[in-house]
Amino acid sequence: MISRRFFVSLASAASLVLVTPAFAQGDPLPSWNDGAAKRSIVAFVEKVTRPGSPDFVPPAERIATFDNDGTLWCEQPVPVQLYFALDRVKALAPQHPEWKTQEPFASMLRGDFKAALAGGDHAVLDLMLTTHAGMTTVEFEKIVRDWIATARHPGTGKLFTEMTYQPMVELLAYLKTNGFRNFIVSGGGIEFMRPWTEKAYGIPPEQVIGSSIKTKFEMRDGKPVLLRLAELNFNDDRAGKPVAINQHIGRWPIAAFGNSRGDKEMLEYTQGGAGARFMLLVLHDDAAREYAYGPALGLPDVALGAFPQALYEQAKKDGWTVVSMKDDWKQIFAAPK
Amino acid sequence: MISRRFFVSLASAASLVLVTPAFAQGDPLPSWNDGAAKRSIVAFVEKVTRPGSPDFVPPAERIATFDNDGTLWCEQPVPVQLYFALDRVKALAPQHPEWKTQEPFASMLRGDFKAALAGGDHAVLDLMLTTHAGMTTVEFEKIVRDWIATARHPGTGKLFTEMTYQPMVELLAYLKTNGFRNFIVSGGGIEFMRPWTEKAYGIPPEQVIGSSIKTKFEMRDGKPVLLRLAELNFNDDRAGKPVAINQHIGRWPIAAFGNSRGDKEMLEYTQGGAGARFMLLVLHDDAAREYAYGPALGLPDVALGAFPQALYEQAKKDGWTVVSMKDDWKQIFAAPK
Repeated sequence: MISRRFFVSLASAASLVLVTPAFAQGDPLPSWNDGAAKRSIVAFVEKVTRPGSPDFVPPAERIATFDNDGTLWCEQPVPVQLYFALDRVKALAPQHPEWKTQEPFASMLRGDFKAALAGGDHAVLDLMLTTHAGMTTVEFEKIVRDWIATARHPGTGKLFTEMTYQPMVELLAYLKTNGFRNFIVSGGGIEFMRPWTEKAYGIPPEQVIGSSIKTKFEMRDGKPVLLRLAELNFNDDRAGKPVAINQHIGRWPIAAFGNSRGDKEMLEYTQGGAGARFMLLVLHDDAAREYAYGPALGLPDVALGAFPQALYEQAKKDGWTVVSMKDDWKQIFAAPK
Repeated sequence: MISRRFFVSLASAASLVLVTPAFAQGDPLPSWNDGAAKRSIVAFVEKVTRPGSPDFVPPAERIATFDNDGTLWCEQPVPVQLYFALDRVKALAPQHPEWKTQEPFASMLRGDFKAALAGGDHAVLDLMLTTHAGMTTVEFEKIVRDWIATARHPGTGKLFTEMTYQPMVELLAYLKTNGFRNFIVSGGGIEFMRPWTEKAYGIPPEQVIGSSIKTKFEMRDGKPVLLRLAELNFNDDRAGKPVAINQHIGRWPIAAFGNSRGDKEMLEYTQGGAGARFMLLVLHDDAAREYAYGPALGLPDVALGAFPQALYEQAKKDGWTVVSMKDDWKQIFAAPK
């Protein structure tokens, strides 16, 4: 049913059929089971893209915003950027003998994330500022590129970029094919994501929004550089997400996708605009294939990436789609690229 | 010569000819005299867009950044946003009896910009924070839209949007046709520009970068709003421009356009990237049709939008194109839209 409706919809847009005939004839979301979540996505896309639809939205205004950690790729047992920070701590440790006794570094060096994160947001910020600053933006980009090319998840042994979610990668492509522009709006570091999001998600650097540290322009040996400073610029989480969306895009999203408490305000903001809107939360309920946590499942919540009961109730009340990874997704992780 | 080379270049790109046959056959820059400035623009665009050229740049990387005030529209005798601030001061004055004696408001209310600006950057910031904050982003957008639709330049009597520069509007279209994305990178307020830049320049909100005040997300009567706070977020001038370009775009521009000291670092940053680069400064030397000022002409400089002698010398030394409005532009102002 869905694939036929989708085909008819595409067939009416001659240029799309011309460009992507193979895609138009297949299911654009093959890794999604045919349930309410998938149907809600397709119904939304069809009503905002069908010419003459009362909910039609011009392509320029088809802005979709995606959280990254836990929404587009795995963020357990800790977000990927913390593994990057750990490797940076190890690399920098010889220059910092004081880290042997100083938290959160001492715990990081022992590989004890739980103890390192016991210091809360302050500990995370301290780690980020210490390990992500002191070089130029170009130097940092190379450090990230080199790291992401080889770093692997301790549980699965996969490259982290192989732990992007195949159904979400398909969703990004489906939206893009339908004239949407997809933006990442993540609590993670903007410069940590930009080097690899285009390859992993088809999202170019100018469509990546994230947390950031300050940079400073200077001429060095006659060449311009941006030096990364150990000072927070913006924390792109919770109420920061709508602020950053407005600052970067200057348009109101019509669709927003998240998975945790940090995404609540982004979804509320998206829902508050005039016209058709779509909000979705990914529920991590698949202990066999990924992770399962949170009170909605009767399980303890996680420290980073929590999905509290109140968020689950808000989603139900406000008509947000809640995706069960276990029931809605045929496949979890993307194939290697 | 130029139009023929341009046509041949376009003819080799079948899809463009298909889409824009009329444009391809004409001169894309009809308001530019056939001098060194125009030739340098066309030569750059041809070499970065011609397939097989050693300087070829893929479309995704064709980023051009433009200052706004004095580069895309008139900023004399004072930048347009100050006229907006003046009208805001007048509108808010009844609620602020203390402004009758408090600077810079007292001078503004007397229409004396020179005295109001004697307080320097601090006075300008004070004006902006006082007159641009205290409402939601949606409310502010409406205030700007209503104002820009009717506000006129005191010297010419034209709408301010009729004082955009026709040659630069043509240049923006020429670059866009050649696969560039044009970004505004202005010391002016980002939310002051976004409501009208698409109509005036063909530049959508997400490609506008500017100075900003902080905003705060909150739910108001169950609806999400972003409240504009009387606190500076970012000053997008001088060394701030490369910082903002990296933050918003995450790509290195290959072309940059300015007209004053505030654009120096943006042009230096652009020039510092690898591969072909193009830097241009507009020199205001046309007293009859616009304004003439600055030591390069043996004239006094202006307070806001200064073009010091050192910048002129740097442009000559570093191979930046300097446009003479008097000699290079057939027409100054754009036709009404």
